[in-house]
Amino acid sequence: MFENIRIILNQTSHPGNIGAAARAMKNMGLQQLVLVDPARFPHADATARASGADDVLAGVTCCDSLQEAVAGAQLVFGLSARTRSLQWPLDTPRSCAALIAQDYRDAEIALVFGNEQSGLSNKDMALCQRIVHIPSSAEFSSLNIAAAVQVVCYELYLTAQGQHVNADADVLEQRDYASAEDKERFYQHLEVSLQHIDFLNPDKPKLLMKRLRLLYDRCQMDRSEVQMLRGMLSKMDQLERSYVE
Amino acid sequence: MFENIRIILNQTSHPGNIGAAARAMKNMGLQQLVLVDPARFPHADATARASGADDVLAGVTCCDSLQEAVAGAQLVFGLSARTRSLQWPLDTPRSCAALIAQDYRDAEIALVFGNEQSGLSNKDMALCQRIVHIPSSAEFSSLNIAAAVQVVCYELYLTAQGQHVNADADVLEQRDYASAEDKERFYQHLEVSLQHIDFLNPDKPKLLMKRLRLLYDRCQMDRSEVQMLRGMLSKMDQLERSYVE
Repeated sequence: MFENIRIILNQTSHPGNIGAAARAMKNMGLQQLVLVDPARFPHADATARASGADDVLAGVTCCDSLQEAVAGAQLVFGLSARTRSLQWPLDTPRSCAALIAQDYRDAEIALVFGNEQSGLSNKDMALCQRIVHIPSSAEFSSLNIAAAVQVVCYELYLTAQGQHVNADADVLEQRDYASAEDKERFYQHLEVSLQHIDFLNPDKPKLLMKRLRLLYDRCQMDRSEVQMLRGMLSKMDQLERSYVE
Repeated sequence: MFENIRIILNQTSHPGNIGAAARAMKNMGLQQLVLVDPARFPHADATARASGADDVLAGVTCCDSLQEAVAGAQLVFGLSARTRSLQWPLDTPRSCAALIAQDYRDAEIALVFGNEQSGLSNKDMALCQRIVHIPSSAEFSSLNIAAAVQVVCYELYLTAQGQHVNADADVLEQRDYASAEDKERFYQHLEVSLQHIDFLNPDKPKLLMKRLRLLYDRCQMDRSEVQMLRGMLSKMDQLERSYVE
């Protein structure tokens, strides 16, 4: 997966960020890390923060210039905290991931992250075809470089996985939902049992039963849960009222 | 924005991660950071990696226990690199953000991140109602803690921005959700009442109570519903067993 996507860190100052970026990449299944003129690399801080992504660090390609780093890439994205007044087509990480998945699946892709102090210069941006801007607070928009790598790789991974918006959807689909009839029988049973324990006034049952139906309907119960609750009611039914009627 | 959402870092080892988490939060418009028993804080590494999010660090609340940190929260999410075999309802960061935006906009929310070495223990998870799992490579699934904070806050931010576009949000029903403490008291009461009617075997209570917690947690009960159910339990408590022991 992602053999065609390289992450390029341009003139990174802090080696810790290189290690953290390597880890973020490996977490999301990316492997190809390219460094352009890093201030310090290799470095103990990079190794420490890679924290198990040593293979990504070991496989790093170092280049002297960004031009060399993007060589062969068919589509180059530049990350920017600024939106740069539309000189370049603008993506979010999500639209970038979608574009790659839909139209550039087998193309060579480069994603370029500028350095900690000043991001990408206009000269660097001239080597990019599109901008990726990570949505962020207007007051404090500049993400740490490894954090930016994390967000972009996360979106690439999700898109590649075809992830559902709702993880529970997968789980829920496998559940053996109670039928409307099962639930209706449970509600009938509940109503009788609650009268038996004198919690429900048969002369004015409606609001309480309505509220209970609303609550249990929200649970999306499966068959075994309805059975469990009816088992509980059956036990209640065996009890005797101890107070004076 | 996000005044109701606290990020809780539980027993964080590296102060640099605390600073990086504070920066990630501020990038996405979050402010409330709670630390449970951090190994070292305040610390120069935290300040350095916060890199401008000094206000988030300055506003940190320190607690001795996770229980104290989640107090008052009406919905507590625990981050986990494992999916923990469906004992808890499972979210992705995106479904978590959607759930908060749709149903818990004005509720107190806590997001709990475990420590670097071992994540959240089962004891910690017992204080959480839902799991958030960040989709990641099966081979290397554990994100750096600040990176995990970044991904979750990014999804919260994106969803909240989308929400602003959607005026329908304001029409959403405002429910007064039960707090974690209210629900915990209900579960304790339920356990005792079910023993009383001999539905629950005190020697082997765990599976039944786990299933009931899972079911009622899914309901997202409000305060009045918890009161209604506890009223029902109180009536049950007054009954006598009619069968031979």
